Amino acid sequence: MTDPVFDAFFSPRGVVVVGVSQDPAKLGYGLARNLVASGYPGAIHFVNPRGGTLLGRPVQPNIPSVPDPVELAVLATPAAATVDALRACHARGIRAVIVASGGFKEVGAEGAAIEAELAKVAAELGVRVIGPNCIGLLDTHVPIDTTFLQPPAPRPGEIAFVSHSGAVCGAVVDYANGRGFGFSRMVSVGNQADLTETDLLGPAADDPHTKVIALYLESVGAGPRFVDVAGRVSRRVPVLALKVGRSPAGQRAAASHTGALAGAESAWDAAFRRAGIQRADGLEEMFDWARALAWCPLPAGRAMAVLTNAGGPGVIATDSLEEHGLALAALTDATQRALRAILPAAASVANPVDMLAAASPQLYAEALGLLLVDAGVHGVIVLSPPPPLYTPEAIAEALIPVAKAATKPVLVGLLGAYLVNKGAALLAEARVPDYRFPEQAASALAALVRRGEWLAQVPQEEGTMGKTRSEAAWETIEQALAAGGGWLSPEATTSLLEAYGIRMPRLQAAGSAAQAAELARMMGFPVVMKVASPDITHKSDVGGVVLDLRTTDAVAAAFEKVTGAAKAARPGARILGVHLQPMLPKGQEVIAGAVRDPQFGAQVMFGSGGVEVEGLKDVAFGLAPLPRAEAEEMLERTWAGKKLRGFRDLVPADREAVVQTLLAFSRLVADFPEIAEAEINPLRALAEGQGAVALDARIRVAKPAG
Amino acid sequence: MTDPVFDAFFSPRGVVVVGVSQDPAKLGYGLARNLVASGYPGAIHFVNPRGGTLLGRPVQPNIPSVPDPVELAVLATPAAATVDALRACHARGIRAVIVASGGFKEVGAEGAAIEAELAKVAAELGVRVIGPNCIGLLDTHVPIDTTFLQPPAPRPGEIAFVSHSGAVCGAVVDYANGRGFGFSRMVSVGNQADLTETDLLGPAADDPHTKVIALYLESVGAGPRFVDVAGRVSRRVPVLALKVGRSPAGQRAAASHTGALAGAESAWDAAFRRAGIQRADGLEEMFDWARALAWCPLPAGRAMAVLTNAGGPGVIATDSLEEHGLALAALTDATQRALRAILPAAASVANPVDMLAAASPQLYAEALGLLLVDAGVHGVIVLSPPPPLYTPEAIAEALIPVAKAATKPVLVGLLGAYLVNKGAALLAEARVPDYRFPEQAASALAALVRRGEWLAQVPQEEGTMGKTRSEAAWETIEQALAAGGGWLSPEATTSLLEAYGIRMPRLQAAGSAAQAAELARMMGFPVVMKVASPDITHKSDVGGVVLDLRTTDAVAAAFEKVTGAAKAARPGARILGVHLQPMLPKGQEVIAGAVRDPQFGAQVMFGSGGVEVEGLKDVAFGLAPLPRAEAEEMLERTWAGKKLRGFRDLVPADREAVVQTLLAFSRLVADFPEIAEAEINPLRALAEGQGAVALDARIRVAKPAG
Repeated sequence: MTDPVFDAFFSPRGVVVVGVSQDPAKLGYGLARNLVASGYPGAIHFVNPRGGTLLGRPVQPNIPSVPDPVELAVLATPAAATVDALRACHARGIRAVIVASGGFKEVGAEGAAIEAELAKVAAELGVRVIGPNCIGLLDTHVPIDTTFLQPPAPRPGEIAFVSHSGAVCGAVVDYANGRGFGFSRMVSVGNQADLTETDLLGPAADDPHTKVIALYLESVGAGPRFVDVAGRVSRRVPVLALKVGRSPAGQRAAASHTGALAGAESAWDAAFRRAGIQRADGLEEMFDWARALAWCPLPAGRAMAVLTNAGGPGVIATDSLEEHGLALAALTDATQRALRAILPAAASVANPVDMLAAASPQLYAEALGLLLVDAGVHGVIVLSPPPPLYTPEAIAEALIPVAKAATKPVLVGLLGAYLVNKGAALLAEARVPDYRFPEQAASALAALVRRGEWLAQVPQEEGTMGKTRSEAAWETIEQALAAGGGWLSPEATTSLLEAYGIRMPRLQAAGSAAQAAELARMMGFPVVMKVASPDITHKSDVGGVVLDLRTTDAVAAAFEKVTGAAKAARPGARILGVHLQPMLPKGQEVIAGAVRDPQFGAQVMFGSGGVEVEGLKDVAFGLAPLPRAEAEEMLERTWAGKKLRGFRDLVPADREAVVQTLLAFSRLVADFPEIAEAEINPLRALAEGQGAVALDARIRVAKPAG
Repeated sequence: MTDPVFDAFFSPRGVVVVGVSQDPAKLGYGLARNLVASGYPGAIHFVNPRGGTLLGRPVQPNIPSVPDPVELAVLATPAAATVDALRACHARGIRAVIVASGGFKEVGAEGAAIEAELAKVAAELGVRVIGPNCIGLLDTHVPIDTTFLQPPAPRPGEIAFVSHSGAVCGAVVDYANGRGFGFSRMVSVGNQADLTETDLLGPAADDPHTKVIALYLESVGAGPRFVDVAGRVSRRVPVLALKVGRSPAGQRAAASHTGALAGAESAWDAAFRRAGIQRADGLEEMFDWARALAWCPLPAGRAMAVLTNAGGPGVIATDSLEEHGLALAALTDATQRALRAILPAAASVANPVDMLAAASPQLYAEALGLLLVDAGVHGVIVLSPPPPLYTPEAIAEALIPVAKAATKPVLVGLLGAYLVNKGAALLAEARVPDYRFPEQAASALAALVRRGEWLAQVPQEEGTMGKTRSEAAWETIEQALAAGGGWLSPEATTSLLEAYGIRMPRLQAAGSAAQAAELARMMGFPVVMKVASPDITHKSDVGGVVLDLRTTDAVAAAFEKVTGAAKAARPGARILGVHLQPMLPKGQEVIAGAVRDPQFGAQVMFGSGGVEVEGLKDVAFGLAPLPRAEAEEMLERTWAGKKLRGFRDLVPADREAVVQTLLAFSRLVADFPEIAEAEINPLRALAEGQGAVALDARIRVAKPAG
């Protein structure tokens, strides 16, 4: 399935480093040094016009002279020379090229031009490129190391790391070396002239040594493809991401509540949720999670046991578990009796199990064993500050065989950073996740739980999300675009929503007070009146809405009031009269909105509506089109959605109709990239079985950017 | 000011360890070993009935034989022997005793009885006790170490640590030893039979070496005293706390919205805010903050510079700064020009300043110096993953003199955990805070900013918060208590609130439909009707409230409806008729509530009112009585409070009247510990200058527990 060129990148039969140097301060030296030091079993070739030898190996004067086998080239040549080098690689039969050198778009226009040429030539020749301006890649199991990272190289491991920053790779490798864990593969994608993080997700997951993928992301070019590829990869291998370059929400001029609340961050969150990617808040957290996901079985539930030799750390872990939505397991009587039999009298055999300070390594191992056989325990955190009578390494050694044999996750916290270091190293070597603080162990256990729950619920029905584009709707949009785009008329808005089965109240226009009164009489009281103006979107802001009109006189008076208020508030606006609609039964009012994110396309918002939506921010976002499970989850993430089931004297509303409306709305905006912004506010959910009605809506169309 | 007994604890002229042991596995050995190893300059005495020598020193057979000087005793005797030992200490002239031994209330009733006796005898004799069941205390500057922690002991430092858990002390010391920072004083308070964390705050702050106090808390006995003492201490020395044993809010049966939303956690947060204590989410975070607060000057503002040798770490730091409410400083042209003159052409001289990977230690130092002289920069984060051409220790050495000379905070992130370790140790030795990840540096910088801002705004007018207890109110409460307590009648509630200047609508009772109609006619339409029942608190939940009655007929009909609905919903409830009040002008509705926390007394809640208050949780808590600044801050922390200034078409309301009502309400509940629970819901804030009116309120009184 994966392009065989990735074999040439990760397990080539031969590698040439072009532009090697004798100067240890140069890139071309670091690359050669690491490749040789990695123990790479294939052929290693060096190229430099000066020839000679480097690290005891011959240096070829040019690429054509490189002997077989050679499948991967790593270029350390000056930027200006890379295009020629690329051509020479192609001529030599090389299809995989890493451009480590800098001097491209990161330094300005001139470099950008070279980079564009590099990408163009690579595409023409069918050569795939990682970089430029990257530190390259490594695979610790082949092994191969085409980076110029400071030694020591990372040790073999189960975590694949794909990074938009080479410096972050350097920091992460040094952190991992200090903490005793390793990597399966690591790739720094640099400027991504050709291959992107998305392209490398599949190859990272295909590696049988990879048990988890960690991503450091600054942005992605093709959002929908990233979501699609990552979503498929994360069904096989858990994917974690640290996404940086956060832009606060609501920075844009707000033409709708959705526009004010949505932003790149809400789109990223929605994208990660859709793709099943767990988003970490920082690097340390991401690798805390990664070790657990790489090394532990998934827990079958949320009930955890804590095993400790002191109260304080146990309380910290308990707090932290609860904060993450996990619970302390209720230990069975049998478990408690068995613990009682081996523990001192003053020990606590309820969860957290406190064995007291004198607990021996053997006691740790035995108690852990007892907790693991309790069917109500889904995972265990084992804690030990430097114990007074034993060494942390003795504790670690006793725990390791029990933890490794377990079918439930066991996470350890040897608490400290000095006396515990040897024990911590033993645990890392044995692939038992170990943490410096109880909070980190609890956070990692929660990541395991989320992974298990996501796998259990992830929809397998990927095929059902095809386009459902309505021809009638397209005509409406086409006409609006022909007229220059912008906000649709109320009639066009209604027709668009109705084409997707979204109910709107009958809406009729009146140009005078008398006409309005007559219309209301025919419609039946009470009615609602709204000012009719193509220039006013937030009608209630200008006094342009009046509810519950019960007589023809009241309607006539309201006509003057509404149009007058609108004129006063917006002197330049065109006022066409008013719209009337029957006043509907009471219900719960919510908001559904959509805006288009430049990276991920349409994102849909759901939440508390009304004028206060922006203040309360009781909203959730998802990518359009929404799968049903995700629409349901958006309801559950908001108070607006939760209370549809009723709360105190608030009667239940037609929740199913809200779900259906949200799904239809998400299909509408997914079908038509021409819809730049849309909002139903409020959507009134009537009593159960009575449906939901879009009381007001606005839709803006524009020619799609792409 | 501080009791001189604390000198006997922290800098005694002589110390006796009672119950020393030759067995390295015993407490009595560990205590002796650490005291000797600490280099304590006073007299060291050992007591054990067997006599002999230990660590080359004589062992006295009993306490009376201990020669002068001796001011502090550390007991490692069995629990049952501690009371006699305490008496012997007193007879020997010792007023300060640490009981390290366990076997007290932590092991059950028998131990608890011994502990009670110990406390009683200590109080009788005027001996002060730390413990029992504690690891003791240490001061690294005296130096003295009366703990039995595993060596190595902590190094001298500026952080005082007071802990409810000895095991957490052990973990924290090992962490600090690994990270290269130290402590001024450390105390484990154990079971707190006598001295508590609150008693030790003053002594910790009095130590001239202490620059910051860190607390690990599980609970405090006397909440108001803790808040008072900590509040005074934190004006001098910053105080940080990790509070564990979180109990989720809203667990109690909810008799009011406030009762449902308030909990121990909201009270702790309010207490910490009042006392100026910064609450950390975990141990690592607390010590990340502590190092910065101990070692750095406070920033004059929120504009920060980031100096890095690579883009990725700079982006991470920027994100993190923004997440904490800090900003990137806009560098002056002069700064940018000066940076341009020393940096390579491709470097970025805008903030974050990226010097590129080849940046030398000298360049780091020079660029840092340039950033520090920019008046718009209030603090700097300096980042370096292991650099390719230099050692991290060379970077550290170059940075240290510049950072130490600065009048602005400089926080460093040598990113990694292996190659960077030597550089990190140099920074810690020089008291320059250093972090493994950029996120941690940003979090610590934010803690510095919060400290500076708190010091700038903390009210100096402590005397103005005295009791304002109203006699009229006391009579009302006394009567209700005499009748067994419980919910006050509407009349009593009104009278209580009015005694504190809180406006209520005129409220009149009617026992029949005809009486209600007549009353309404006299009152003037429209009116509001509420069922009158001492047994129904949430009246709207039972259909017991009708608004906007405009005719006598409507009033009469509503009487039947309201009383009928209440009877149907609560068959057992006493229905006395209805209450009528004039319907008020529109406004914004908020909630004010109060409940009594067992640790901290009355906590006041403010937020979004209405039936949805429990769902939206748009509420803030504070301790009663509220200082004005804190009441204002509670408004600013909620959307309900923010929107009082107006938002879109929501007209501004009388915010000042809301503040005054909240202050008065907080005085009421502070004045009367007999008020167990009170709630104004809704409090309607009328248009500006029109005041605020408590539309509905309920108050429950009960004999105070204490």
